[in-house]
Amino acid sequence: MDKSRAAAAQGHLLIVGGSEDREHDMRVLTRFVDLCGGADQPIAVMTAASAIGDEVFAMYRAAFAELNVTRLSHVHLDSPKEAASEKLLARIREAKGIFMTGGDQKRLLQMTGGTPVHSEIAAAYARGACIAGTSAGASAMSRFMLAEGKAELEPEKGAIRLGAGLGLVERIVFDQHFAQRKRLPRLLSIIAERPDLYGIGLDEDTALLISPGRGIEVIGDGAVTLVDGLNMISNIDTLDHGEVPRLIDVRLHLLPAGTCFDADADADAGRDTRIPPTFQDFFDAITQP
Amino acid sequence: MDKSRAAAAQGHLLIVGGSEDREHDMRVLTRFVDLCGGADQPIAVMTAASAIGDEVFAMYRAAFAELNVTRLSHVHLDSPKEAASEKLLARIREAKGIFMTGGDQKRLLQMTGGTPVHSEIAAAYARGACIAGTSAGASAMSRFMLAEGKAELEPEKGAIRLGAGLGLVERIVFDQHFAQRKRLPRLLSIIAERPDLYGIGLDEDTALLISPGRGIEVIGDGAVTLVDGLNMISNIDTLDHGEVPRLIDVRLHLLPAGTCFDADADADAGRDTRIPPTFQDFFDAITQP
Repeated sequence: MDKSRAAAAQGHLLIVGGSEDREHDMRVLTRFVDLCGGADQPIAVMTAASAIGDEVFAMYRAAFAELNVTRLSHVHLDSPKEAASEKLLARIREAKGIFMTGGDQKRLLQMTGGTPVHSEIAAAYARGACIAGTSAGASAMSRFMLAEGKAELEPEKGAIRLGAGLGLVERIVFDQHFAQRKRLPRLLSIIAERPDLYGIGLDEDTALLISPGRGIEVIGDGAVTLVDGLNMISNIDTLDHGEVPRLIDVRLHLLPAGTCFDADADADAGRDTRIPPTFQDFFDAITQP
Repeated sequence: MDKSRAAAAQGHLLIVGGSEDREHDMRVLTRFVDLCGGADQPIAVMTAASAIGDEVFAMYRAAFAELNVTRLSHVHLDSPKEAASEKLLARIREAKGIFMTGGDQKRLLQMTGGTPVHSEIAAAYARGACIAGTSAGASAMSRFMLAEGKAELEPEKGAIRLGAGLGLVERIVFDQHFAQRKRLPRLLSIIAERPDLYGIGLDEDTALLISPGRGIEVIGDGAVTLVDGLNMISNIDTLDHGEVPRLIDVRLHLLPAGTCFDADADADAGRDTRIPPTFQDFFDAITQP
């Protein structure tokens, strides 16, 4: 682990699989508020993934009010032109945490990709803010974002299309509502087409907390499924569109809520915090600063 | 590959994921008839997994009639006592192929496990018959049979219970209706509890053909999913009943219909028939005579 690079991004990423509890135990949102520095810190809710931003914001305003958050701002865009609005940029600049809601990740990128809003989010992350995203907001986090995908029963050649995401993580593609919508075929379609990328599927009400250069933790109710096709043998190059690829040697890791891996863990501290050797490469890709 | 042991079982196993087409192209049933030596050979349909054996037999009688099978017999049991019936035993003894239908694998084993019928099926296999099983008939094939299993979203400790199967394959547990009923969590529950066993999930209208000591082939419409926990790191021993285990380094292989691996394939014959080194152990477990 290159500690000098860790300084490049000092914030946290909280990647949420959608449908996080907003009324009862609110484990994921509670942790988000903690990562922002507490309920008295300024938090921005970004609803640009949704065409009904006010409704979505009202829902989160109620949830964050329950958590005693006092300084909540709303960042919404209905056109990329608004991404130069000084009022919106100031809300992001001031925030200790940015929560990107669900909707459609393509809309989120159409509104913000390559704009000053995008730059301000990256800057907020670099200076230590917690960037959270749920559902579409989770998909948008990475360099390569799942823009379309339809594999139902088995992975298929041509079933998915990747687009440019916000680039806060480099080599990972995130999918959400994972166990609930049974999306393993879609995640396998991604690594079949792009074995250089890792796939991560997040269950509903479940979050992967990434502390760059440091560690990961799984929070909430379900699990996170990781698929690794780096050593996979596939025949996808010989197939026609729509055919099911043969995939030999996909590695799959299942991390239930409560899992915590820390790069700096003392080897004597207990096996739950140490990283198994076979998981080290994937761990490094996730936590790359 | 020990060729002397291959002689111990000269038949074939056809493990079918349920709901095989019985009206249109009938790819799986057609292959079964071929493996029996053709439509003029004696074939027995074993319906002991079902409480409505006559109805199930009538359905297969119609399908096999379409395939011009002329010598079809019915083997059904409503009590283990019937497993000593010389009339039923003669039908198995005469058959070049035995097709075990769906129903409940526990019923199939209650009726036949350890009885003369069970011995005759094993003897038929040893002398070269094709033993096919679909759905419950597929689950029953192995030494360790999935008797109960309920993992819905994620694998769970205690979610599955294995019982004794017919023992025609040693180290594999089969699950069926795999993609259609989204049974990966159940299959992962099996290897989480029993990492010494391999898990194989079969899609509907899809069959795994096992030629012991020789090779495997996938037939039909879908795919076969293989999971291998031999090198997995798991915390299941520390968990309570119902908790989701952490699983690091599960290996997953997806073999779509058309896949063919042959232990004796000429290395020059083309990459589709050669066995990737990382798949060799699993292949050996499946094809073990």
